[in-house]
Amino acid sequence: MCRAIREIAVEIKPEPVRYSVIVKSGLAGRVGKYISKYNPSLVVVISNPTVMGFHGKLLLDGIQDAGLKSCTVIVPDGEKYKNPEQLNYIYGEMIRAGADRRSMVIPLGGGVIGDMGGFAAATYMRGVGYVHVPTTLLAMVDSSIGGKVGIDLLYGKNLAGAFYQPWMVFTDPSVLATLPDAEFSNGMAEVIKSAVIGSPTLFEMIEKLPIKPGNISKNDLEEIIFLAGKIKADIIQADVYEKNERMKLNLGHTTGHAIEKTANFTGFSHGQAVAVGMVAAVMIAEEMGILEDKSFYVRLEKILNKFNLPVKCPNLSPDKVHEAMNVDKKRMGGMHRFVLPVRVGCVRIVENVNDAMVLGVIRELCKD
Amino acid sequence: MCRAIREIAVEIKPEPVRYSVIVKSGLAGRVGKYISKYNPSLVVVISNPTVMGFHGKLLLDGIQDAGLKSCTVIVPDGEKYKNPEQLNYIYGEMIRAGADRRSMVIPLGGGVIGDMGGFAAATYMRGVGYVHVPTTLLAMVDSSIGGKVGIDLLYGKNLAGAFYQPWMVFTDPSVLATLPDAEFSNGMAEVIKSAVIGSPTLFEMIEKLPIKPGNISKNDLEEIIFLAGKIKADIIQADVYEKNERMKLNLGHTTGHAIEKTANFTGFSHGQAVAVGMVAAVMIAEEMGILEDKSFYVRLEKILNKFNLPVKCPNLSPDKVHEAMNVDKKRMGGMHRFVLPVRVGCVRIVENVNDAMVLGVIRELCKD
Repeated sequence: MCRAIREIAVEIKPEPVRYSVIVKSGLAGRVGKYISKYNPSLVVVISNPTVMGFHGKLLLDGIQDAGLKSCTVIVPDGEKYKNPEQLNYIYGEMIRAGADRRSMVIPLGGGVIGDMGGFAAATYMRGVGYVHVPTTLLAMVDSSIGGKVGIDLLYGKNLAGAFYQPWMVFTDPSVLATLPDAEFSNGMAEVIKSAVIGSPTLFEMIEKLPIKPGNISKNDLEEIIFLAGKIKADIIQADVYEKNERMKLNLGHTTGHAIEKTANFTGFSHGQAVAVGMVAAVMIAEEMGILEDKSFYVRLEKILNKFNLPVKCPNLSPDKVHEAMNVDKKRMGGMHRFVLPVRVGCVRIVENVNDAMVLGVIRELCKD
Repeated sequence: MCRAIREIAVEIKPEPVRYSVIVKSGLAGRVGKYISKYNPSLVVVISNPTVMGFHGKLLLDGIQDAGLKSCTVIVPDGEKYKNPEQLNYIYGEMIRAGADRRSMVIPLGGGVIGDMGGFAAATYMRGVGYVHVPTTLLAMVDSSIGGKVGIDLLYGKNLAGAFYQPWMVFTDPSVLATLPDAEFSNGMAEVIKSAVIGSPTLFEMIEKLPIKPGNISKNDLEEIIFLAGKIKADIIQADVYEKNERMKLNLGHTTGHAIEKTANFTGFSHGQAVAVGMVAAVMIAEEMGILEDKSFYVRLEKILNKFNLPVKCPNLSPDKVHEAMNVDKKRMGGMHRFVLPVRVGCVRIVENVNDAMVLGVIRELCKD
């Protein structure tokens, strides 16, 4: 037989992945019961010593009560351990514990544990199931939803990773009782960001919250986490692989990343940098005539202040911040791309932001 | 607002992935032209020194002629280099060359390069596109189709990996001119396996081929690679994540893996081990009364002999081979799972294969 063209058409239809994010106080102790339906051969809990000390027993007891076998893998606390060495350590511990393709992973912790534990799940024996149990406010409203997993390399952050969705996310706001106030503020920056992107209701709720985290009612805490998570879920469903819509989640991040970098990732936490970045976005939106709601700047400043989040970065050099923005991967051919607020609950992706104007705004923010 | 249950339903709809495997002599030089439609910011060719020496210029010239930027990453030749260290080296070289999310990877080589290069593509910045250019017969008919990518860990083979489909596969049989005869035989074992699983036509074609690889006509070579690849593609489309149908591709592998392991991965090549494994499968099928075609054993032995593939393993200890099978991950609760031939072009997955009978067959194969 002689054929003109020998071409094999391969069509892979991955099942649509559906999963639930459940937000409920006291949920961490009931994770075992929920996941018993998957009948995993082994449950691998990945955590750090701090979080394990606070919440490990609750989770593990629940897993045991559900009649499931478990093991724990403890990695050191901190972003600098989100690296290939620790990932290899996790693989090794999983092998030693006898994890197979029917085993499951539970990252119990904040973003670092979630990213690295999720990536271990994504790649161990070409992928096993996992469920998130986020223990920081930031992880609850941000990194636990959307399936972005990965590790840092020597050359930069999140350079090795995957899009790999969890089977469920168990968000238990009661674990936040052990979270330091500074970490709570950090998470609030992302909650506020979500509100600005997509929910006037959430924004108004935040305006009415008591100042001290400990004074926020259980119901209000569940509700703001739920609403913020819902906004993220809606956006990523529309754009899983970050091509368009998902960029909206970068509100405050263009300037924010530059601030973090200029401060050598020590002076500003991620949430603090995003807070200042949101203020920058409002100022740019106003300059460009995009901002419709003139009271917005004042309202934003007020809720950022309320949660001890900065609205300026007076100790940084404007030129250095500006330079750091220029190497940012979001820069497109000489013009800056920004997510800019129109009004509370509505943002726009704007490609052609003038560089000199951006520098002017940064200078303003860096003033004493 | 007080809600009874706060649950966010997330539904991710990954696009169905469609790609073409094109089989045509002389294709390697035209890859650049084909991929220019993707407009990659950089093309990262990953290869080893041997393959790069033979076929690198042809590929790179074509990429340059298409007006695309490229760089090469060379890793040492051999399975032992399919490891985390080399993967990290690849990441580093990609960073240094300026690869971003719009860059593409081309693994140019056999299974080792394809697996590791594909895994680098799957995980670099959470995944970039890649196209395969397989240069061994084995990779052409087996590993380049199906999206299994990964690396070996200290603890075992392919322990870190993913299912990640290429954008295209460019199979150029003319590159096989530089392949050692032993490697050609190795690949023929998988071609024969494909024929046994799904194509009497292919089996008959192989029976009629000339003995020397160099004497096989260009058209016949294209056709057998095309038919073998088509069988693999049909099976993986039905079962991407290896839950049922895809297990058929393991014909000859249950015993084959045990033979490779017993011979310390040096005495038998993968193809040789699979050849003996297929003979074992036929013998077991006959013992169990599953084999319908009684002439099959003789026909199989004849084509294996023709391509210098073994039908026995007389230098191995039957007890050791048997023991190695027992730790094989395919063993299910005390009974062996085998893929067994019914007739040429038809196999069955059989779960309840008697252990003593398997040992008897292995003893037969290990006899002088």
